[in-house]
Amino acid sequence: MSVPIFDSFLTTTEIIRTFDDTAVIQAMLDFEAALARAQAAQGLIPGPAAQLIEQHCKASLYDTDAIIVAARRAGSMAIPLVKALTQAVAANDAEAASKVHWGSTSQDVIDTGTVLVTRDALALINDTLDALCRQLLVLAEQHLQTPVLARTLMQPAQVTSLGFKFANWAAPLIRSKQQLKTLVRNALQLQLGGAVGTLAVMGEQGPAVARRVAADLGLAINDGNWHTQRDDWVRLGLEVAILTGSLGKIATDLSLMAQGEIAELAEPSGQGRGGSTAMPHKRNPVSSMIALAAAARTPQRAAGLLANMGQEHERGLGNWQAELADWPGLFMSAHGALTALLEAMNGLVIDTARMRQNIDNLHGLIFAEAVSIYLAGAIGRPAAHHLMETLTARAVSEKIHLSRVVRQAIDADDRLRSQLDLEQIDALFDPVAATRNGHQIAEKLVSQLRQTFENAP
Amino acid sequence: MSVPIFDSFLTTTEIIRTFDDTAVIQAMLDFEAALARAQAAQGLIPGPAAQLIEQHCKASLYDTDAIIVAARRAGSMAIPLVKALTQAVAANDAEAASKVHWGSTSQDVIDTGTVLVTRDALALINDTLDALCRQLLVLAEQHLQTPVLARTLMQPAQVTSLGFKFANWAAPLIRSKQQLKTLVRNALQLQLGGAVGTLAVMGEQGPAVARRVAADLGLAINDGNWHTQRDDWVRLGLEVAILTGSLGKIATDLSLMAQGEIAELAEPSGQGRGGSTAMPHKRNPVSSMIALAAAARTPQRAAGLLANMGQEHERGLGNWQAELADWPGLFMSAHGALTALLEAMNGLVIDTARMRQNIDNLHGLIFAEAVSIYLAGAIGRPAAHHLMETLTARAVSEKIHLSRVVRQAIDADDRLRSQLDLEQIDALFDPVAATRNGHQIAEKLVSQLRQTFENAP
Amino acid sequence: MSVPIFDSFLTTTEIIRTFDDTAVIQAMLDFEAALARAQAAQGLIPGPAAQLIEQHCKASLYDTDAIIVAARRAGSMAIPLVKALTQAVAANDAEAASKVHWGSTSQDVIDTGTVLVTRDALALINDTLDALCRQLLVLAEQHLQTPVLARTLMQPAQVTSLGFKFANWAAPLIRSKQQLKTLVRNALQLQLGGAVGTLAVMGEQGPAVARRVAADLGLAINDGNWHTQRDDWVRLGLEVAILTGSLGKIATDLSLMAQGEIAELAEPSGQGRGGSTAMPHKRNPVSSMIALAAAARTPQRAAGLLANMGQEHERGLGNWQAELADWPGLFMSAHGALTALLEAMNGLVIDTARMRQNIDNLHGLIFAEAVSIYLAGAIGRPAAHHLMETLTARAVSEKIHLSRVVRQAIDADDRLRSQLDLEQIDALFDPVAATRNGHQIAEKLVSQLRQTFENAP
Amino acid sequence: MSVPIFDSFLTTTEIIRTFDDTAVIQAMLDFEAALARAQAAQGLIPGPAAQLIEQHCKASLYDTDAIIVAARRAGSMAIPLVKALTQAVAANDAEAASKVHWGSTSQDVIDTGTVLVTRDALALINDTLDALCRQLLVLAEQHLQTPVLARTLMQPAQVTSLGFKFANWAAPLIRSKQQLKTLVRNALQLQLGGAVGTLAVMGEQGPAVARRVAADLGLAINDGNWHTQRDDWVRLGLEVAILTGSLGKIATDLSLMAQGEIAELAEPSGQGRGGSTAMPHKRNPVSSMIALAAAARTPQRAAGLLANMGQEHERGLGNWQAELADWPGLFMSAHGALTALLEAMNGLVIDTARMRQNIDNLHGLIFAEAVSIYLAGAIGRPAAHHLMETLTARAVSEKIHLSRVVRQAIDADDRLRSQLDLEQIDALFDPVAATRNGHQIAEKLVSQLRQTFENAP
Repeated sequence: MSVPIFDSFLTTTEIIRTFDDTAVIQAMLDFEAALARAQAAQGLIPGPAAQLIEQHCKASLYDTDAIIVAARRAGSMAIPLVKALTQAVAANDAEAASKVHWGSTSQDVIDTGTVLVTRDALALINDTLDALCRQLLVLAEQHLQTPVLARTLMQPAQVTSLGFKFANWAAPLIRSKQQLKTLVRNALQLQLGGAVGTLAVMGEQGPAVARRVAADLGLAINDGNWHTQRDDWVRLGLEVAILTGSLGKIATDLSLMAQGEIAELAEPSGQGRGGSTAMPHKRNPVSSMIALAAAARTPQRAAGLLANMGQEHERGLGNWQAELADWPGLFMSAHGALTALLEAMNGLVIDTARMRQNIDNLHGLIFAEAVSIYLAGAIGRPAAHHLMETLTARAVSEKIHLSRVVRQAIDADDRLRSQLDLEQIDALFDPVAATRNGHQIAEKLVSQLRQTFENAP
Repeated sequence: MSVPIFDSFLTTTEIIRTFDDTAVIQAMLDFEAALARAQAAQGLIPGPAAQLIEQHCKASLYDTDAIIVAARRAGSMAIPLVKALTQAVAANDAEAASKVHWGSTSQDVIDTGTVLVTRDALALINDTLDALCRQLLVLAEQHLQTPVLARTLMQPAQVTSLGFKFANWAAPLIRSKQQLKTLVRNALQLQLGGAVGTLAVMGEQGPAVARRVAADLGLAINDGNWHTQRDDWVRLGLEVAILTGSLGKIATDLSLMAQGEIAELAEPSGQGRGGSTAMPHKRNPVSSMIALAAAARTPQRAAGLLANMGQEHERGLGNWQAELADWPGLFMSAHGALTALLEAMNGLVIDTARMRQNIDNLHGLIFAEAVSIYLAGAIGRPAAHHLMETLTARAVSEKIHLSRVVRQAIDADDRLRSQLDLEQIDALFDPVAATRNGHQIAEKLVSQLRQTFENAP
Repeated sequence: MSVPIFDSFLTTTEIIRTFDDTAVIQAMLDFEAALARAQAAQGLIPGPAAQLIEQHCKASLYDTDAIIVAARRAGSMAIPLVKALTQAVAANDAEAASKVHWGSTSQDVIDTGTVLVTRDALALINDTLDALCRQLLVLAEQHLQTPVLARTLMQPAQVTSLGFKFANWAAPLIRSKQQLKTLVRNALQLQLGGAVGTLAVMGEQGPAVARRVAADLGLAINDGNWHTQRDDWVRLGLEVAILTGSLGKIATDLSLMAQGEIAELAEPSGQGRGGSTAMPHKRNPVSSMIALAAAARTPQRAAGLLANMGQEHERGLGNWQAELADWPGLFMSAHGALTALLEAMNGLVIDTARMRQNIDNLHGLIFAEAVSIYLAGAIGRPAAHHLMETLTARAVSEKIHLSRVVRQAIDADDRLRSQLDLEQIDALFDPVAATRNGHQIAEKLVSQLRQTFENAP
Repeated sequence: MSVPIFDSFLTTTEIIRTFDDTAVIQAMLDFEAALARAQAAQGLIPGPAAQLIEQHCKASLYDTDAIIVAARRAGSMAIPLVKALTQAVAANDAEAASKVHWGSTSQDVIDTGTVLVTRDALALINDTLDALCRQLLVLAEQHLQTPVLARTLMQPAQVTSLGFKFANWAAPLIRSKQQLKTLVRNALQLQLGGAVGTLAVMGEQGPAVARRVAADLGLAINDGNWHTQRDDWVRLGLEVAILTGSLGKIATDLSLMAQGEIAELAEPSGQGRGGSTAMPHKRNPVSSMIALAAAARTPQRAAGLLANMGQEHERGLGNWQAELADWPGLFMSAHGALTALLEAMNGLVIDTARMRQNIDNLHGLIFAEAVSIYLAGAIGRPAAHHLMETLTARAVSEKIHLSRVVRQAIDADDRLRSQLDLEQIDALFDPVAATRNGHQIAEKLVSQLRQTFENAP
């Protein structure tokens, strides 16, 4: 595979193929073919010349490794490829060969080729993203009423609805899906400007040729060119980075909830999945690992895109080439993470009993705020806060359930007893009741997410 | 100023003020006041309590440094501030004090406070961005027909229209302006979820209170909360980063064109601007320097936003705090760069004679493509390419104008003389004619950019 | 404080003071005073002029904010400062004023000033680092024999020695301490090259003056200058980044082990530490939070240093200024993290009983490898691996202790019974015995670390 | 090649080969063979078993692509490889198969394998670095007396010695060479800790086996293990990043000096080098481009190493895998940049006449500081500064040589004429004289650099 081994291990075969040498070369040749067709249609070059060029626009005809080596000397992937194509055409018709790549420049064919393979990559990403959103919405709907510990600053906090957690995982993914849909309209655009962006060689016909090429390849077309104005392109890459960041958030939560000592969720097991050479009993969270690695690498690639925006004059030296080289990694990481998490979510093991047990293990301490608020209403906030500090400290140190500590405190204090309603206090310690607000908010959220998701084409 | 000295030197006093200690504390207090008002309006707390709270929501009443020191121990800026506010209210009315910050959590007040100061920062950015776009469009319109060297890979390439360069500088700025306008709709949103995002304390009334607070503060409201779903927020930050990247591109070009040996553009001079302690004759490109520094620092901050997206469970440990701390720098750099470039563009020194001279200094070599294409049409591309390699090599080594070398070659070769038209060749060496295509493309581009710009509110 | 509020919250007052406006201005003035003294000593300027200059090298004499504003126009912090100093001296003696900053350049005073404040920052860092290393070594020595779960890929794996964990936390810190000591020798160096690094103005005496200034300020001196050769400087910054990375690793482990459901370690509690506005029972891992935030922000700053190394010619445009502005953050984060973790380690709550209980909760599964190896020795690895897969699956699904499952399997199978020794198998399930190897390796490691640590000055 | 096309275009075939799938797999197998040998030598496994294992440790025996696909499911490259090796051995001897990878863990084989291929990569880097340093020292020695413009903030400043520039390019490379030599002593170390770093399976013999394996593979050995203590490793990676940064600085200067309008240096031309598809006359700075792209990408990779240091507990989830995947890129970029710049420096075209002409074109303005200092000595600094502002402004606006303007001013002013020596002033405008100080400093610097370089093995 055209990817180093520890890279390919973290992504998918499908998306590696999208960006592999042959695919990129073929996409560049697709541009050359479309250019020739458009120029023939505009009468700039003879039809037969265009046909001959098109016939030679097949990646399998060329020696990729030799082209790479020559490209290093030439300073451009396009120069040796165009040379090889020209020679191939010339072997049939020297005149037609003079029309190859006519009026175009290296950056036109390289950028457009990259746009074309990126479109394929985005199709893969979109399909997997769709499936993942769908599955998360189903999980959210199934677990609206399931109590689970909410945790803040890596400490158990209060209870929430498990469906709310799933909905919160889905929401950013659905936003990214919409955003990608919007951004591709500008970002998947033809690059065609000629040597310095003015389409000078084709004269008056330049714009018409450009429109034809764009239509032929199904790409957007900008009024200028984007040789060194990379904002639309970078914006697309950064949205993929945001998507991967949101996947990383899911993987963070999943891996934390799958810790042996918490064990509320688990990735699916099965043939060859997550084993350990040294510990046959372990079930490693392999999907989380892939998504976390993707999220760990992506910010740097995003920074790379931004860092390379200062491309000099009409074509950048070093920065454009660096941007191109960093580009595929963003997509490979995203698809690796999506595919891994889809597999995890499709086979997700949800242990609701353990969730309940983890709540119970906290001896009612997570209901302290609710109790505190109730107390504040009855005896004033300062007194309530002070009392709760004492009581929760006792519950912690003596490992007694807070409800019992509270009851004892009230029993032992006449004033408190007269101000407080023990039954109301008991109700505050019910996990299902405590989940009610989370459940309601989640219900509304899920319904809106589903609507947004279903309505997006 | 609440910024280290080598930071403050690269930005503006106005935007430093937007994010300074007092402004942030005040914005947090504005949230507390709005929360109390909304809860009073919903009947959750007494009206007089809300009024009393509101009266104490003035940053000048509190000791910022002491709050920061206490915040380090507490692990949150909000805890000591809320405590100080509560104590201040309690000095008047202990009961009202128990309603301070009620049903809210640290992250609610901190995030919303940050949103409020960010809105102020964006207003500053938008104003300066508007002025810069306007000035660039004027420059573009003025110089549509001015020939200037286009340069690719840091080498003179061919001629283009100076107006085209200006238009290409303006285009990404106008796109960023539009994009920011779209993104703030979601990103400038209220944060209000209570301890774990479920608004549990306020019960059924939570959503209504949230809607009131959002309306009061003029913020958007989301269906859930965004405690650990930072995508909308990050997306806004990344767009500011893209804007700064586009400014860096302008500064790159400007500083290259302002080099003493090129001298086509110069930043304005004047009182205290760009002097050198050791070289009284130098005019340093100070605006470019500030914009380049901004563009150099911004990718890392953008990476920081993405790297901190994996916030654990319902509130992140370390990553949320890192994101907050990195946030203002993005805006301070952007405004520093915008202000610097606006000053540069308002007083830009444009030396069109030098532009022409730089073209002439290249001995016609930049017209080689045009000649080559003409030759290819006449004698076939391979022969043309081969001939031009020889002729341009001679023009370079003997420092003779290419037009003369070409003419001599044709004169010396009967076959060529019969195939070629010397008058047509001479015309290919005219810079103004060579600019025609760039001029036409730029004209259309500028007109569309102006339309987009004028139509945006 | 000269730092934005959400920055200052994550670091210490001491190190903020090191880099604050006054300290930086004073350090720059210290350079000017030392330069004048050295030039007087070499006979280049009159002694009284040097004395007069020195008398005016007090930061309190100048208006920092005005200097910053003027610096933005001038493009250099040094220009307005030198101007102000010159004016102050000139008010006494115009001739002496002409000797201010003589033969030097903006970058000389700015870089040297930054070196001087960095030395102060490193002294703070070194002190806190020492104390932290010392405490970690003590903890390691105390807990060499304490069994604790080792965890891999976020899953319980096998038992190890708690002292080994502490020693592994200490080891990289001690390596960073040594490395910093080595690197400062080159990195804390004088910058003095004059306008373009050739010390041209001072003629033959330049090198002698430079040696005197370096000796006076206690700085190293390089054979050339380092105006645009930033490697020694960047190397120092990156080592601070590595230190912060190692602190982040400690904080990661600490926060994971302090999770409510694991509860093996806890940060100290106490007045105002780690409370929550909404959850009075929570003890938030505040030290971990500060160290994690530092570790989250530092890689980007390190990238900034590297990204700005390509400084043009003899003085960079934008990149040098960006490097300067990014520099203090590296040190502020490191000292914030060190101070926070020192506090955490000094009051660390270690629950060895809970560690044992967490081991026991795993039903012997973590001893599966030991059992597997024993079985492999007896019945061959493939058979052993296959058998253990079955047995551990049963232990998991039926929640029975693995030792019991193994015993039952052996009892039920004559062939196994004849091949295996039940007593040996029982011994494999003893946590203390299982820690023996970790204990021994840790003992040697700790002893070597202590030796290295004690021997470093 | 096992690298995406736009990556492979920016590096060398040799270093791609070092990190390609087969090389990495072979290195992992080398570890397994060495482990078996060591265990046999210690009597832990039978000699014939070790021999059989060793015979199967050949990468060509295994299907790399199948292993990668299986590794994604398993979450580790090692698991399917060890499985394949075990099966291959088992086909001959089931008992010997049970000794494969014995007492080791996935991370041991993966990390050690990566160390081994990294050693090969460093050898390539070191060789090319040596050659480049050597060539730069030669160039420095040849051009100690050649005057060239020094430029600060992208503006011509004063003259310096070209040899000084070359020496300043060489100095950081020689420092990196030394630093790499020091760092590999710790960083090229064996990883062998078993499941959780305690070498538990091998009991008392673990440390002896580890020493044998390290000696066998020629690697350092640490007292603990470095499963999640990555500082030594990261330090090595960061030094490679510093080296690439220093190469980027050279490429920045080279590409600026090679601009058509400056033309002081040029990269060598020749067959297929730096041509343009559209502009046959252009000689693109291809080496600079490759080095600049390397320098543009490297900071992000360095940030990735630092960002992934917080590896959890005894084996990281996602971060370790991300670090592994980012690692080779650092080395591939460095070697690409070194090779490109070596080619550029070996054939560097140095136009000393143009350097002189560029000095002359500045009308003596770059000597203004020298004149100013002379004037300050004669008429006091304030008067001198004021006078020079006027005179240089005149020289600029009227495009007259400053020496003429100065002479006219003196002629026109009796007081000045009496205070100043016209001959001395004339001498200040001599470029060769002005280079003297730079020459002397450079001479000393070059001599010391050569000594350091020659003495390093």
